[in-house]
Amino acid sequence: MASSAFASIAPRPLAVSIGDPAGIGPEIVAKCWDNRDRFGLPPFVAVGDPGAIEQVWDGPLAVVGDPREADSAFDIGLPIIVVAAAEPAAPGQPSVAGAHLALDALELAIGLTRSGTASAVVTGPVSKEQLYSIGFSHPGQTEFIAERCGVASANVAMMLAGPSLRTVPVTIHVPFARVPEMLSAALIEARGRAALRGLQRNFGIAQPRLAVAALNPHAGEGGMIGREEIDHIEPAIAALRAEGWHVTGPHSADSMFHAAARANYDAALCMYHDQALIPLKALHFEEGVNITLGLPIVRTSPDHGTAFDIAGSDRADPRAMAAAMRAAASAAAARLNACSQAA
Amino acid sequence: MASSAFASIAPRPLAVSIGDPAGIGPEIVAKCWDNRDRFGLPPFVAVGDPGAIEQVWDGPLAVVGDPREADSAFDIGLPIIVVAAAEPAAPGQPSVAGAHLALDALELAIGLTRSGTASAVVTGPVSKEQLYSIGFSHPGQTEFIAERCGVASANVAMMLAGPSLRTVPVTIHVPFARVPEMLSAALIEARGRAALRGLQRNFGIAQPRLAVAALNPHAGEGGMIGREEIDHIEPAIAALRAEGWHVTGPHSADSMFHAAARANYDAALCMYHDQALIPLKALHFEEGVNITLGLPIVRTSPDHGTAFDIAGSDRADPRAMAAAMRAAASAAAARLNACSQAA
Repeated sequence: MASSAFASIAPRPLAVSIGDPAGIGPEIVAKCWDNRDRFGLPPFVAVGDPGAIEQVWDGPLAVVGDPREADSAFDIGLPIIVVAAAEPAAPGQPSVAGAHLALDALELAIGLTRSGTASAVVTGPVSKEQLYSIGFSHPGQTEFIAERCGVASANVAMMLAGPSLRTVPVTIHVPFARVPEMLSAALIEARGRAALRGLQRNFGIAQPRLAVAALNPHAGEGGMIGREEIDHIEPAIAALRAEGWHVTGPHSADSMFHAAARANYDAALCMYHDQALIPLKALHFEEGVNITLGLPIVRTSPDHGTAFDIAGSDRADPRAMAAAMRAAASAAAARLNACSQAA
Repeated sequence: MASSAFASIAPRPLAVSIGDPAGIGPEIVAKCWDNRDRFGLPPFVAVGDPGAIEQVWDGPLAVVGDPREADSAFDIGLPIIVVAAAEPAAPGQPSVAGAHLALDALELAIGLTRSGTASAVVTGPVSKEQLYSIGFSHPGQTEFIAERCGVASANVAMMLAGPSLRTVPVTIHVPFARVPEMLSAALIEARGRAALRGLQRNFGIAQPRLAVAALNPHAGEGGMIGREEIDHIEPAIAALRAEGWHVTGPHSADSMFHAAARANYDAALCMYHDQALIPLKALHFEEGVNITLGLPIVRTSPDHGTAFDIAGSDRADPRAMAAAMRAAASAAAARLNACSQAA
């Protein structure tokens, strides 16, 4: 049962980094505040340059200095913690200054969540190309956040979640040709464990079921069409099963994503980026959420990019960002609930 | 307009090889005949061992010696052209004799279609593992049929078709790790051309639109995550466009299979098996049809395997086989119509 020590704490707001100021991040965060009731959103605070939002949105901003002020400010305006811009961003025109701003906002949003003043971090879309240009050396935001939280990148996992499917890729932003050499039983096992624990911690599923995808067509047909299933995937599944986890596979990747198959698992462990993203986006393009598992904090993001091509034209769809906010709040509540039960 | 030379010819029946006699082929072919009105099926003739069907079905068989007799026999019983079995097959228990039978039935069904007595060939599911055991050296039925029709395998293409998506993989039953080395601009161009011509010939689409998938995550991000897009895919697209075809891409594979994206093309050209099959089966698991493009004949098959595990238990779903028959009849009609218009 809930202990009094936790029950008296008001839910803290989400910290939402607005991402690249020249992308659609500022617009979708503002549209989420506009539609906060319809989307069923919890209080949140934007983290970024107010000017980037004002360029694309006419609503009221409520500048705050601490996320804890966001709760009372939330009905007055979009709460924002200011990250000062060196120069104003122009929608659709990515710049070095914008990349710095995106990274600073991300750092601050992570810090606010690490310190406990925000309940979770939701990250707006950044341009990896722009970040690389200012010396960012991580493959993506996920690995950067893992490092800031002191977690080895093999022990975190990126989950893509939609209403009827959750997938977790073992390898992510690597060339197709390098996927086979990157796969090992140890990595598959680590990602699988992160996925299983994440289903428990972020989704409150006590006995999660994980379905593991094969790499090769027809799951390799017993070694006739590739051996990664035999050499790496099956040993990883055996190791996880030996720990008592419910894990099945390797499954032919083309036979595990229809409705009847999806009913048999809580998440699918996929071997590479597109194996996880193709089914997720085919089924849930407008509402896919990226959830980082294995961190001490809750982190989610909308599963789309900066969309520089439509930035500033009021055409950005805020539904994925809204879904990311709801997923973050839900995961934070699941963790708080687990704490309460343990206390 | 239809010329009198063709208008007087009655539609010829489909030749349907029943596949491995120990698989679900015999059952789904029989169930298609049972439900021929409900499924909207044209007259067809089964090609295989009558005993394999009688083991799993109590309905009437109508043994015929020539497909042209099937039309009048179709209301009396399931027309069948007999391929004699060396020994009876047991459902769920694949055997060497069964593999020989499957291959003989396939040969005969192709021959009947090549000779023009059948309008198209629909192939039931075979076990490649079993076929390999009797010395079959083709990667699959598709390559075998191409050889029997005297067409180079690079110039045929396997299309997977469902109600809202058609995909064509450039590489098929090869290990994941070998896909990058097998891709070349020439192969992608050849498969793309086969896909485009197939959309014209089998679907009657005068100006087909082809969307070409990237190989790497995020389409390689300008070479940051792999170079196959730059080195092979873009040149192939340029070559096809230079011929006047409507071709787009390379598209990030995870962003081309949701409903809004699918509305922009008639078929997606995919670089590997699972890239084509994952979205097709996620969306259309029960009704996926395999259509071989680039052949002088029409050939389709249901997009599933022998399912030895459920053979003989009356649980096989005939809908994909029915869809394959309808697709074959439709493609044969489109070709006949094109002939009539040319005459």
